[in-house]
This record gives sequence, structure tokens and C-alpha cells, in this order.
Amino acid sequence: MEQPWTKRQRPDRLERRIEFADYESTRLFLERLNELSEKQQRYPDISFGRTYVNLTLRAEPDDNPLGDAEFSFATAVDALGN
Amino acid sequence: MEQPWTKRQRPDRLERRIEFADYESTRLFLERLNELSEKQQRYPDISFGRTYVNLTLRAEPDDNPLGDAEFSFATAVDALGN
Repeated sequence: MEQPWTKRQRPDRLERRIEFADYESTRLFLERLNELSEKQQRYPDISFGRTYVNLTLRAEPDDNPLGDAEFSFATAVDALGN
Repeated sequence: MEQPWTKRQRPDRLERRIEFADYESTRLFLERLNELSEKQQRYPDISFGRTYVNLTLRAEPDDNPLGDAEFSFATAVDALGN
């Protein structure tokens, strides 16, 4: 399967953009993402408009390389669907 | 009262950053903002992390100057509190 996340540096982070058909789909995705964040106590930076969501997931702490925690969270986000 | 929005150009837009004490406060603000957006059918660009929300409100259509519609929505956002 295509890996939909882009790895970027300074600081190390994973980014993904997701497009939605309408605002309702966007809102439902954000609700599922909220539940995941609260469960894992992990809060990515999120940008969204009516029909898109951009996610940025930084390594914690910021200056460390990306590790299992980040890739595991990214996979969990992918499982939320869109 | 201080006008908390910053007017920017190219494209014309209003921007505001709001800080919150914790994720719960951020989430509750986003819920109120969602209700306002659905009621007014107006969807600003929103960036948020655990304890902040950045809002960008563009003129509609993009190439027009900011008008009453934008300032009215901005005032409604301010009334949501934080």
C-alpha cells in the first residue's frame, strides 16, 4: 500500500494531506481523530478547511529522530479512513 | 475593546490566534466554532494544536475586499469566548 505520509526534516516530522468530499466528511474524520488523540495522548498539528485536513506529526521531543511512536500513530490515523 | 483580528492582504483576509489552557478548552472552542460554521455556512481555514487555534477568514470570492460578511463572522467568533 502507498505510504501516504511525507517525512520532513528540521524538525523531524511526518505530514499528510487528506481531501474529503464535503464538510460533513471532514468533520467526522476530525471527530475520529480527536478520539484517537485523547486515547493516545498525542496531539498532532492540524490544519483544516471545508474539505481538507493537513496533519503534522512531530517527533517528541522535537529534536529526536522520528521513532516507532510516530509511525504507530500515523498508521492509526490511516486506519481512521476518509 | 481590542480588535483581536489582523487584516492581511494578497489575498485579503482576517487572521486571529487564540491560546487555550488545555486541550479540553481547545476542543470545546472548536465544537462551538463548528456550530457557528454550519449555521452560517462559512468555513474559515483553521489550524490547531493541543492548546491553540489559528483562524484565517478570507473574503468571498477571494479577489474581493473584506466586507461586512467577514467582519460579522469575526465578531461572531469572538463571541464564542475562549
